[in-house]
Amino acid sequence: MIDITMIKFAVLADCFHCPVKGEFEFNIDWLLLIDHQGNIAATYPPQHPEYADLLAAFKRNDSLQVIPKGEYLLPGLVDLHCHAPQWPQAGKGLDLPLYDWLQNYTFPLENRYSDNDFAANVYQDVTKTLLANGTTSAVYFASIHRQSTELLAQTCLNVGQRAFVGKVNMDNSDQCPAYYCEPSVTQAIDDTELFVNNVFELAGNQSRLVHPVITPRFVPSCTSELLQQLGGLVQRYDLHMQTHCSESDWARDYSIQHYGVSDVTIYADMGLLNNKSILAHSIFLNQADIEKINQFKAGIGHCPLSNMYFANAAMPARELLDHGVQIGLGSDIAGAPSPSIFRASFDAVSHSRVREEGVDIYLPASERGTANARISFVEAFWMATVGGGQVLDAKVGLFEQGYHFDAIVIKANSGIGNLRIWPQFDSAKDILEKIITLAQPENVAKVWVQGKAVI
Amino acid sequence: MIDITMIKFAVLADCFHCPVKGEFEFNIDWLLLIDHQGNIAATYPPQHPEYADLLAAFKRNDSLQVIPKGEYLLPGLVDLHCHAPQWPQAGKGLDLPLYDWLQNYTFPLENRYSDNDFAANVYQDVTKTLLANGTTSAVYFASIHRQSTELLAQTCLNVGQRAFVGKVNMDNSDQCPAYYCEPSVTQAIDDTELFVNNVFELAGNQSRLVHPVITPRFVPSCTSELLQQLGGLVQRYDLHMQTHCSESDWARDYSIQHYGVSDVTIYADMGLLNNKSILAHSIFLNQADIEKINQFKAGIGHCPLSNMYFANAAMPARELLDHGVQIGLGSDIAGAPSPSIFRASFDAVSHSRVREEGVDIYLPASERGTANARISFVEAFWMATVGGGQVLDAKVGLFEQGYHFDAIVIKANSGIGNLRIWPQFDSAKDILEKIITLAQPENVAKVWVQGKAVI
Repeated sequence: MIDITMIKFAVLADCFHCPVKGEFEFNIDWLLLIDHQGNIAATYPPQHPEYADLLAAFKRNDSLQVIPKGEYLLPGLVDLHCHAPQWPQAGKGLDLPLYDWLQNYTFPLENRYSDNDFAANVYQDVTKTLLANGTTSAVYFASIHRQSTELLAQTCLNVGQRAFVGKVNMDNSDQCPAYYCEPSVTQAIDDTELFVNNVFELAGNQSRLVHPVITPRFVPSCTSELLQQLGGLVQRYDLHMQTHCSESDWARDYSIQHYGVSDVTIYADMGLLNNKSILAHSIFLNQADIEKINQFKAGIGHCPLSNMYFANAAMPARELLDHGVQIGLGSDIAGAPSPSIFRASFDAVSHSRVREEGVDIYLPASERGTANARISFVEAFWMATVGGGQVLDAKVGLFEQGYHFDAIVIKANSGIGNLRIWPQFDSAKDILEKIITLAQPENVAKVWVQGKAVI
Repeated sequence: MIDITMIKFAVLADCFHCPVKGEFEFNIDWLLLIDHQGNIAATYPPQHPEYADLLAAFKRNDSLQVIPKGEYLLPGLVDLHCHAPQWPQAGKGLDLPLYDWLQNYTFPLENRYSDNDFAANVYQDVTKTLLANGTTSAVYFASIHRQSTELLAQTCLNVGQRAFVGKVNMDNSDQCPAYYCEPSVTQAIDDTELFVNNVFELAGNQSRLVHPVITPRFVPSCTSELLQQLGGLVQRYDLHMQTHCSESDWARDYSIQHYGVSDVTIYADMGLLNNKSILAHSIFLNQADIEKINQFKAGIGHCPLSNMYFANAAMPARELLDHGVQIGLGSDIAGAPSPSIFRASFDAVSHSRVREEGVDIYLPASERGTANARISFVEAFWMATVGGGQVLDAKVGLFEQGYHFDAIVIKANSGIGNLRIWPQFDSAKDILEKIITLAQPENVAKVWVQGKAVI
């Protein structure tokens, strides 16, 4: 039997997770053993010969957490794309085109993060709100300000959220407003390198709950010198990298006009792609782009709700999943208003359905959409958990030995929000689909990150 | 000055409402006077000469409700299309085509409502949940069962929700399962007429908070004899009528094949259309249909989220609004999972945006969508309130003299759900847009229907 002194606590629960893309497991009364580092040491199904003895042992030493029947343990959700400083803007300005939205709303707001007190206030709220929505791993675009971005990293440590935090880089004076533009490549790179080292050395970050991320905003915001030198940092430190990729007609066309190649090729040529690069959106990819992403084992942060407003088209999620591209989901706060990755999962299905059916009543049905474009709820949930973990090259999203214990408990009772489970009608698949479609913060009863209860 | 003995209570609040389609008013510190019948007797802006005296008078006699700053009074929301018996199914089965969804999930579930105890349980929860989401007026499709549908009407009275309740009619044995089909036109009509009279005579329904609604399911479910005789009841009693209208390719084609004309023409010819008819969905309308709907002053219950899953296309909301068609919103529980009309408002904007942009990345931008198809958040909120009231021919959706006082208070504070208002950044328009996009039941602090506090 396992040495139970190695175990911090055990959890007895009905658990959902998706070890295989497109499928799910519903494991009733499983026992999960969490070690002192917050990782999953072992999982035991009820039929395991040692199950009864282990259960008794953890009960005896008072280190068993029993999740009541009717509540469900799920892997924590992964948000691959959240602009933390845009949180005050969530839910407004959605009537504008992307370019105007950036210039009139977003850049003026982001520029306020030179003020650390203001930043502290917003960053405390956004990180706690994402946790309350069940997001245990978050990838944050911050602003160009090193100090307040370090404060965001510290805030994630303080609230106990696994986070991947980037100081934004943007220096192209043709595209950036004068008040919100880095003064030189040298200063941008020095500042970014300092940021990287400071995040690694944050007090309390020995186990690297928080990672620095190289963050060129997107091709139009950056000079090619900046992109190149940021690529150098990615290579030298083997860092995560996040950016926007082929998000809209305008962004796609900008790259073609200025570089003669697509975003993916630019990022690859600049040394920015590796096995933990997060390419947000990635709507307008060609076959060569897809192959290049797979070759680098880079990944996509799919943000379906924001796509409905700003992307000019739907990401071909069906084809990209079928090509084996690593894909997770992003809230894209505040290009979309909801901080919930359950909501992003639902919207990923919805947008794929609209893509399949089409929209125009004046076309015959046969010409209206793209056949077989839909994705399933289980595939969306896979992206929200396992897929996100794969993109980040992090051991999250599954209840398996060696994975971090990042988990949430979903509670569905009459009188709490809108989620209702009717045991006499609902199969395990129904329950999972209902959680995806209807869970709200009210239903998130408990959140653990790295074995630590944070909600 | 107004005779204040005629007033039950006064409300002092910052209020949003939309007297003009496409515009909104934000009225700070208005005083609303509610009479003993629960109607709005008068409204006073702060600059009115009698304002100060009235405010003092209501304070003195302890009948003033002050809505704190940072909370907002809105007209109660109107849900024009909710299948109450499908509530246990909300959030599942959305991977099926409409026809399979009906046959495999919906009809077996609806058939259980021959059991009044089962019905009582579900109907109590769905009506209270809609109220908790801010829906003060709801239009319910029930099931074919008269008794449990009367119980739904009684439940609405008990929980204090303004409701429009229909016993479903369906008798076409070619399209209905044998176990869920009315045995004869005569029996269906007798039962329906009895239902109508029983609802009018329910204890506590003297002021007609709850209305019976004639409810042919849709063209394929009904024989032409049944449609005709239901039309007779509509005319004889001047009743509300609800049905599905041109929801999908299949439904549209069925009518053309079997009647040679469109749904709207069939309903008109059968005597089913009047100034309080609710045509749910109405996706595939032609110009003659639109003119006929306007001629009868009938209205549309627009259900955008369900449309993304089941309608095969997007309703041309922009064009229909521009043609002056009366349109409100519906949750379409459980063709869509969310009971929130805020969510329906948001999805109405989203689907119109997807329609404008298109979805197919392989088409050039110029061929991808329909130019100028978008609707605004304010137009969506107008549909959710004023538009719904117009369709129902009910005095709801505005804070004006003579309207029923159906209202909700929205509270936005850090730590409650996901809605955040930042007074230093957010204009009145921003606040309204944020409420529409992010309000959840947690943010609905208070609900009045006909002047009575029900939450």
